[in-house]
Amino acid sequence: MAAISSLSLKTSTKIQSLPKTHYAVPLNLPFSCRSKSKRTGSIGSRTRIHCGLLIEPDGGKLVELFVEESQRELKREDALKLPKIKLTKIDLEWVHVLSEGWASPLKGFMREDEFLQTLHFNSIRLEDGSVVNMSVPIVLAIDDSQKNLIGGSSSVALVDDENNPIAILSDIEIYKHNKEERIARTWGTTAPGLPYVDEAIIHSGNWLVGGNLKVIDPVKYNDGLDRFRLSPAELRDEFTRRNADAVFAFQLRNPVHNGHALLMTDTRRRLLEMGYKNPVLLLHPLGGYTKADDVPLHWRMKQHEKVLEDGVLDPETTVVSIFPSPMHYAGPTEVQWHAKARINAGANFYIVGRDPAGMSHPLEKRDLYDADHGKKVLSMAPGLERLNILPFRVAAYDKTKNGMAFFDPSRPQDFIFISGTKMRTLAKNKESPPDGFMCPGGWKVLVEYYDSLAAAENGRVAEPVPS
Amino acid sequence: MAAISSLSLKTSTKIQSLPKTHYAVPLNLPFSCRSKSKRTGSIGSRTRIHCGLLIEPDGGKLVELFVEESQRELKREDALKLPKIKLTKIDLEWVHVLSEGWASPLKGFMREDEFLQTLHFNSIRLEDGSVVNMSVPIVLAIDDSQKNLIGGSSSVALVDDENNPIAILSDIEIYKHNKEERIARTWGTTAPGLPYVDEAIIHSGNWLVGGNLKVIDPVKYNDGLDRFRLSPAELRDEFTRRNADAVFAFQLRNPVHNGHALLMTDTRRRLLEMGYKNPVLLLHPLGGYTKADDVPLHWRMKQHEKVLEDGVLDPETTVVSIFPSPMHYAGPTEVQWHAKARINAGANFYIVGRDPAGMSHPLEKRDLYDADHGKKVLSMAPGLERLNILPFRVAAYDKTKNGMAFFDPSRPQDFIFISGTKMRTLAKNKESPPDGFMCPGGWKVLVEYYDSLAAAENGRVAEPVPS
Repeated sequence: MAAISSLSLKTSTKIQSLPKTHYAVPLNLPFSCRSKSKRTGSIGSRTRIHCGLLIEPDGGKLVELFVEESQRELKREDALKLPKIKLTKIDLEWVHVLSEGWASPLKGFMREDEFLQTLHFNSIRLEDGSVVNMSVPIVLAIDDSQKNLIGGSSSVALVDDENNPIAILSDIEIYKHNKEERIARTWGTTAPGLPYVDEAIIHSGNWLVGGNLKVIDPVKYNDGLDRFRLSPAELRDEFTRRNADAVFAFQLRNPVHNGHALLMTDTRRRLLEMGYKNPVLLLHPLGGYTKADDVPLHWRMKQHEKVLEDGVLDPETTVVSIFPSPMHYAGPTEVQWHAKARINAGANFYIVGRDPAGMSHPLEKRDLYDADHGKKVLSMAPGLERLNILPFRVAAYDKTKNGMAFFDPSRPQDFIFISGTKMRTLAKNKESPPDGFMCPGGWKVLVEYYDSLAAAENGRVAEPVPS
Repeated sequence: MAAISSLSLKTSTKIQSLPKTHYAVPLNLPFSCRSKSKRTGSIGSRTRIHCGLLIEPDGGKLVELFVEESQRELKREDALKLPKIKLTKIDLEWVHVLSEGWASPLKGFMREDEFLQTLHFNSIRLEDGSVVNMSVPIVLAIDDSQKNLIGGSSSVALVDDENNPIAILSDIEIYKHNKEERIARTWGTTAPGLPYVDEAIIHSGNWLVGGNLKVIDPVKYNDGLDRFRLSPAELRDEFTRRNADAVFAFQLRNPVHNGHALLMTDTRRRLLEMGYKNPVLLLHPLGGYTKADDVPLHWRMKQHEKVLEDGVLDPETTVVSIFPSPMHYAGPTEVQWHAKARINAGANFYIVGRDPAGMSHPLEKRDLYDADHGKKVLSMAPGLERLNILPFRVAAYDKTKNGMAFFDPSRPQDFIFISGTKMRTLAKNKESPPDGFMCPGGWKVLVEYYDSLAAAENGRVAEPVPS
């Protein structure tokens, strides 16, 4: 997947001056290489975008939270002597996220001041007065008995199902977990039936424990996909190796169809028009917790692989990697997290679609979020001023071209909108979408997935995994 | 009330450098007069605090939204030709708030981008990239029929109960009023029984209308208290006339007891110790909507008057005025509004107590907010970096002194805590609190109030108003 090739294009730098919101706009050359101090949201006017380098991580430095290799055995022994907190699957995903610096400059699970700023301001102020975006709480819940077990210890060991030490949390701080307030402020509703809430919050403990995290061994899942789980540092190395002078990130948790592909290809074209010489796409499927009716990661990765194989996207200018975060389905709040994490991985352009990270209201017959709020909130979010927001253009099936094209409102009769639901129904029924909707190889993977799912439902296989 | 006297003390200026949070800390002299650019949260490093002047309003300029006197008749006639929106009592209070610039730099009821930033970030970014605090939505709801009535008109007239035009809202923008999301993000709960929600949101329309406000005549209530309703501009004039070199605001919606008085007196002492020559107290009872079981404004004002008459507070260094905002009871979210509005009135110090703007959870047997979150959130709030936060010190009745004193944890047995509930029960039963809890004149007002309330409940008088 995602052939790695080094293009020796000359790196040039271009900074666009931006309008009130920070949507990217094409500008005529020449571009000048200077600090966008008026847009950084920080006070010290430190230059955040350097000539010839990738966008700086939040806080100026990528925060990796690994124990040094030479110290691992020692720390493992230390961990055995500490009070233990057993991690859930989602907790472990957050340990992974934190350890690799996706949430830089966080140094571990949130302390109360970070949690409160996240809930109230979707951003955190640093010691130097600058502001970084942080919209979803990254917290570790413990119950009364775990709290009692910790007692006065200033450190705890975070362990897996089998009590193997994964990480140490030190200089800890325990504070109240007001679940109702957390849910209301994160999702803008407390309606029952929010997937992440049901999975990770409702039955979690009434306390949160924050502290400084050190992971003993880098988190691996041994599921055949670890090779796609590039850390922000690894992605930055890769972009640098490719001499990328712009990195545009595309977050997804669905199969890629030709409308997506058109958008990504078109984005590259626009960036070239802006004067960039080598814009590289970060195709970045979310790899952590997703709700039950989303297509599982394994199948999605297989589908993405086919899309690249079929030449729909150019492997020379595309990096496919897995974003290890769990999914909140928190719409305008969560899209900020998705964007912010990609800054840390080196992306300075972010493609945002209609209703990002949205879902149906769990009780009412409507979408939970206004379809436009995601991109509006993202464009105004504190700490994301450095990121260029690229709003998604609507693509639909153009009957006159037998393929996906950007919707042309002057001839609506020529277009068919194929919703996710429609797509799933077709694949489930082994029907074919119109030619040109998705590359045949990719579509075949989808049909196989739903086939395996039906088989699993009929009790023929225990867990559908792509062959 | 609040004798106005001009003290001709020399104005000096002192800026404290502040720790990570912006609590005020006493510093040794000398103070230097310089910009706190690292703490302003704005980017342009414009000097926000000037030597010898009051703190600048948010956005640099107090935004008053009055029609010029010479234009009033003309605008009144214009208004008669426009589609009309009838204001509720609370809507009118917000018109009042907006028109005098308490919410500077807002130019009228919020547009969608301001509303979204308020809900998600508790702050609004201005054109120049600087950030002002804005934590509670100041919005005007309309229903479907009103929306239809407005049709394509770009302006509407805001009218009172009798269809008298109060104001014009121009260049309007109509957008969806997602009440659930507004409530969840403002209060951190959607539990039924929140007073402001029941009063002003639940039955309001499904649309919000934002736009530029111009008030035809300054809002007056003709209730005998208008003389105490000083606008931010009038308060600034008053502080300047008194040569105040520090203004410390005390928000309240309860009777003042000697614990409060001690705190205010002690704050002045601390400010003098810091090197200020003439700190002036803004004793600033909230005058808009309050919940049914709060003591009504008329009685509170009478009680405050007695406290000043009894010499508990020094009228020479105290300005008593009414803050016209309605009350949200939204805890950590609302305390930011209370503080921000006082910046616009010239206050650079803000006293914050335990559980500010808090209340009991409407369904559960607990306080809705953590008692410490208000001051923590306030100390970290974007756009309030210029304001010095003075946390409330706990006062209690000291039996050894027969009076209110700051609680001394080394001798807890000497102190009695008299809660609001206890105070109300005593007053209702015409019992006396311990000597020194409240000045006798003030206590008498409270007893009268509960007496009149009981009388009203017995049908003897229609509406309890102090004589």
